[in-house]
Amino acid sequence: MGRDLSALFDPVSVAVVGASDDPAKYGHAIAAQALRADGRRPVHLVNRRGGTVLGRTAALSLSALGEPVDLAVVSVPAAGFEDAVDEALRCGARAIVAITAGFAETGAAGRARQYAVAERVRAAGAVMVGPNCLGIADNTTDLFLASDSFTPGGVALLSQSGNLALELQLRFHPHGLGFSRFVSLGNQADVTLVDLLADCARHEGTRAIAVYAEDFGDGRAFAEAAADAGKPVVLLTAGRGDASARSAQSHTGALTTSADVVSAACRDAGVELVATPRELTVVLAALDGARRASGRRVAVLTDGGGHGVIAADSVETAGLAVPELAEPTRQRLREALWEQSAVANPVDLAGMGEQDPGSYAATVAALLAAEETDAVLMTGYFGGYAAAEGGLGGGGRALADGEQEAARLIAARHRATAKPLVVQSMYPESPSCRTLAAAGVPVFAATEDAARALLATAPGTAHTGVTPLPVPAAPLRETGYLETRRALEAAGLAFPAAREVRDETQLLSAAAEFTGPYVLKALHLLHKSDAGGVALNLSGPAELLAAFRQMHARLGAPSYSVEAMADLSDGIELIVGVNRDPRFGPVAMVGLGGVLAEALRDVAFSLAPVPADRAESLLRGLRTAALLDGVRGRPAVDVAAAAAAVETITTFAAEHPEIAEIEVNPLLVRPRGVLALDSRAVLA
Amino acid sequence: MGRDLSALFDPVSVAVVGASDDPAKYGHAIAAQALRADGRRPVHLVNRRGGTVLGRTAALSLSALGEPVDLAVVSVPAAGFEDAVDEALRCGARAIVAITAGFAETGAAGRARQYAVAERVRAAGAVMVGPNCLGIADNTTDLFLASDSFTPGGVALLSQSGNLALELQLRFHPHGLGFSRFVSLGNQADVTLVDLLADCARHEGTRAIAVYAEDFGDGRAFAEAAADAGKPVVLLTAGRGDASARSAQSHTGALTTSADVVSAACRDAGVELVATPRELTVVLAALDGARRASGRRVAVLTDGGGHGVIAADSVETAGLAVPELAEPTRQRLREALWEQSAVANPVDLAGMGEQDPGSYAATVAALLAAEETDAVLMTGYFGGYAAAEGGLGGGGRALADGEQEAARLIAARHRATAKPLVVQSMYPESPSCRTLAAAGVPVFAATEDAARALLATAPGTAHTGVTPLPVPAAPLRETGYLETRRALEAAGLAFPAAREVRDETQLLSAAAEFTGPYVLKALHLLHKSDAGGVALNLSGPAELLAAFRQMHARLGAPSYSVEAMADLSDGIELIVGVNRDPRFGPVAMVGLGGVLAEALRDVAFSLAPVPADRAESLLRGLRTAALLDGVRGRPAVDVAAAAAAVETITTFAAEHPEIAEIEVNPLLVRPRGVLALDSRAVLA
Repeated sequence: MGRDLSALFDPVSVAVVGASDDPAKYGHAIAAQALRADGRRPVHLVNRRGGTVLGRTAALSLSALGEPVDLAVVSVPAAGFEDAVDEALRCGARAIVAITAGFAETGAAGRARQYAVAERVRAAGAVMVGPNCLGIADNTTDLFLASDSFTPGGVALLSQSGNLALELQLRFHPHGLGFSRFVSLGNQADVTLVDLLADCARHEGTRAIAVYAEDFGDGRAFAEAAADAGKPVVLLTAGRGDASARSAQSHTGALTTSADVVSAACRDAGVELVATPRELTVVLAALDGARRASGRRVAVLTDGGGHGVIAADSVETAGLAVPELAEPTRQRLREALWEQSAVANPVDLAGMGEQDPGSYAATVAALLAAEETDAVLMTGYFGGYAAAEGGLGGGGRALADGEQEAARLIAARHRATAKPLVVQSMYPESPSCRTLAAAGVPVFAATEDAARALLATAPGTAHTGVTPLPVPAAPLRETGYLETRRALEAAGLAFPAAREVRDETQLLSAAAEFTGPYVLKALHLLHKSDAGGVALNLSGPAELLAAFRQMHARLGAPSYSVEAMADLSDGIELIVGVNRDPRFGPVAMVGLGGVLAEALRDVAFSLAPVPADRAESLLRGLRTAALLDGVRGRPAVDVAAAAAAVETITTFAAEHPEIAEIEVNPLLVRPRGVLALDSRAVLA
Repeated sequence: MGRDLSALFDPVSVAVVGASDDPAKYGHAIAAQALRADGRRPVHLVNRRGGTVLGRTAALSLSALGEPVDLAVVSVPAAGFEDAVDEALRCGARAIVAITAGFAETGAAGRARQYAVAERVRAAGAVMVGPNCLGIADNTTDLFLASDSFTPGGVALLSQSGNLALELQLRFHPHGLGFSRFVSLGNQADVTLVDLLADCARHEGTRAIAVYAEDFGDGRAFAEAAADAGKPVVLLTAGRGDASARSAQSHTGALTTSADVVSAACRDAGVELVATPRELTVVLAALDGARRASGRRVAVLTDGGGHGVIAADSVETAGLAVPELAEPTRQRLREALWEQSAVANPVDLAGMGEQDPGSYAATVAALLAAEETDAVLMTGYFGGYAAAEGGLGGGGRALADGEQEAARLIAARHRATAKPLVVQSMYPESPSCRTLAAAGVPVFAATEDAARALLATAPGTAHTGVTPLPVPAAPLRETGYLETRRALEAAGLAFPAAREVRDETQLLSAAAEFTGPYVLKALHLLHKSDAGGVALNLSGPAELLAAFRQMHARLGAPSYSVEAMADLSDGIELIVGVNRDPRFGPVAMVGLGGVLAEALRDVAFSLAPVPADRAESLLRGLRTAALLDGVRGRPAVDVAAAAAAVETITTFAAEHPEIAEIEVNPLLVRPRGVLALDSRAVLA
């Protein structure tokens, strides 16, 4: 059920150790914040020199308080850190918020120090956030232990960056978003991102969880906790590019994870992955209500062609559809609108909105009611008629009143339906748009933001879910080609017939056991193909023998495998591999195999094991997926069998933590069934 | 040199025909605007019912004025449109701004009407904008003939949408951007986008040209005019998605062009193509000064890790590089910064900025001076120290003063160098950021905007330029396989040896002329392969004869081509085609050919003819470009020869306007040289 963090977020009493009267010191800002909720619980200030802090007498030490303290904020120089924590534990602290920096972020010695402190904290039955953190806040319990205050709201923010938290606070404001909790993650020596995610998932006052993290700690546990959160989890992270990966690695000494893996884990776990503070805000604004689209079809309306087509393009670019409207909807719109209005998708009121703002409301009602739409986007001028007088687009009092009435009608219609409605307006702060926002309609100034918001409310295209790691099987002792192959065959993966041979006699007797053409592989070479250790398409025993002699003379391998050559003519070659990521555990890769694979890099990732239904989604999502259905008269291949093989391979890999990497390449997918033509594995 | 539009943008006198005293009428708003510059030139108001308009006596007709009028705005009901224009021409008008709607946008009859009017306008030596337009404005000549006023500045906006123009006006404001001219394009019956683009290119008061267009008219001329403009041209357009293409087609009856072609024309012409009003604004803010980066390497700095890595990711995602800094720069930074500052790229002041804002200035100076960077991005908190008191991040007076001083130092350093500096700030409206903006440093609130701005200042990756269309050659009479092939051979493209044969005797005599293996193709079938009309790899005359008999029995083609089979083993198959676009003329497509081509759609487009250097850029930009350099031990192929073949084919196509489409597929590129293995053409 996760760790008990109640002392962290709702302590009985609080002490700030290192509270300072010097406004330039962090211990000053945090003490000032802490005192804001003095009435809720006792707040003690401690300064080793005593004196007055913020008009209060500071205690010389925690012990000098003469009473137990439930939560201690430790903001002292690094040299005194251990003593301060030990004293807090002696004074009964069940939670420590460790501001002090100078530990893991400075190198191995610092890492060892923070490890030792965390051990003592845990031994005392307490919890510690940090060190090297900026504090925490919980607006639902009036706990203010960070240097800034955060507007109350439903978002729990777990962040490795203080400045990004401040930017989010600024960005949240126009959308009416606020914070339930803020936690600066720091070095996660004791309490981790995963602990906090699990606790915020249980926290009633939190409707959505926003995370900025560079180091995921136990990434697999993060993905599992996010998948089980039962509320939106939005992740802002870096590391897509070379520079950010280099930087994160060097400045936290953290184990970083490739962007492909993070992105796959997020998709599996249902986490919304975002790239910037702005995108994070847009997604949270979209997900703040419980409203979700049941499909990916969006209807767009505007009054004036330009905004409609620009928005339609943005929506389609985001990966959603803007389909034609069905005849009943067009008919309903024809009745409500002018002759010159376009009753297509996008709907264009063509100036009618300027004469009769009620036409906006009638159109939104028709589009929300249409069976062929899953969400509605209103874009452009709406809001302008009621915008500040004298400003651009001021259209007179009657128009302004009409627009306000339209906004109320739209809000009512929105309440009466379950479909998402999103608005892009040139005048997002206008009274009409504020009426919509107050009714829970997300309003954005930028078209691309509205499109991103719609994407966030839309169902995903892939089967999500984080499959628990299976119980480990008996470890493999060797991962030579034949051992790996035998183990995969035992797991249910089909290979062509094969015999291991050591000399010419064994070779010819093996050839007699099945018909040609044959394949000959030299064994005990990791990259057989690159070394010239694979001969294909040997038509009969004579060609096989010739190839054997030639290969043996060149490579002198201790043994060889004689195999039946598969018929490649109607098949597609895939690659299926599993690598063990230090953070996310076994991660599967599926993609197009063969010679083109390297040039194309047409691959998809997922946390292993990958169930067959998700494997099929991954395959269908490849850029070259059209090949699976047959092109230029070639037959379609057996995608279901390929997906089952992916499940088999990835489950096998997950059951064998001793394997660092395993690859089946090519996996030949034929019109009926699959055959693994080669495989290799490397022990960890 | 383009049309003379001086009467349009700087008329001697103006009349508004259809001026109205009813605030709900467009003729009211436009009259009110026109009168703002009454002192600059005579402004007459005309209303067929006379009376008072905006406190002035309206003339009953233009003729009743008793004096010539240089420019007439015509805003009357459609029924009276022709009469109003004719009267204006009689009264000496050299320019007409036609607001009246109800012409080409309503169908063929309306199109014929506007065509007839435009003919009369041109016959009179006058020019006409519209009909169905919202007016024009020229802030450099105090000409205000649209319903809204536009803040003066250096951007000429040519727009098919009025509401988008209003949104741009709102978005320009925070960036200090304004308008030199605004032209609502309307139906372009006489004055076209191209005429206006050429005139704005010559216009001294215009520093950059922004275009919103759905229909490009003569797209080729648009591209040529943009390439020759000598100032930035930024194009906002729709049509990337299905819905916008559908909509543009239906609501203007316009010929729309595929997004691939528009995008290629923009790249060739050096036009910045954008997708939203926000992106257009960001690009204009970046290009407003003359500052351009000479390469794609960006240095990023911040104070607090999060913003730095997020920004680095955004910059790399935009297609720019964030390379490691050279040792001299690192050394310079080490001397200027704290021990805990990261002197990598991104540079992280790690809290020093909060203690000493001068460290920002020192860092910017070092990065602008570094040889290994082409542009600098400062991101994050800067601006917060001097932000409004009591707000978030207020850091005391000394800090605020220090930040302002840093801003002045940064501005001075910026003036002293030629490299672009772009700022993303949580506090873009802060005094420090305003100091930077006033010095010409673009400041953005969002990281992705800063990255987009940097991209706009960076040099392109492809060779740009619009090659003029060549003089047409003698037209081809037939475009059968052999005729096309012969013409391409004459143009310099290499094909394998081939002979046309009609019977078995000719077949065997042809086979004797060169050695096998052979290819046999049935002629006079458009899609030979699909119909089973191509037999490959026929090893000798016997196989050739057998294939001939079998094919002839099945297809009964009138003749066949016997060809030498090329050695495909070390080659890459490309596809090179040219289609004639109704707007942009001959458009070339180059890409990966062969069986995978359809599934991958790995193709690039460019206006034909394509010079060899641009062809090479296009080939190197393919997703599968790695194949050209050889993968898995295959040799690199002759990209220069492939590029030369692209020039040959696309020049040939451009010289033959009678050809609607032509395709060479496959074009076999070998380690040395190329061979065209098949071709087809279709007459227009």
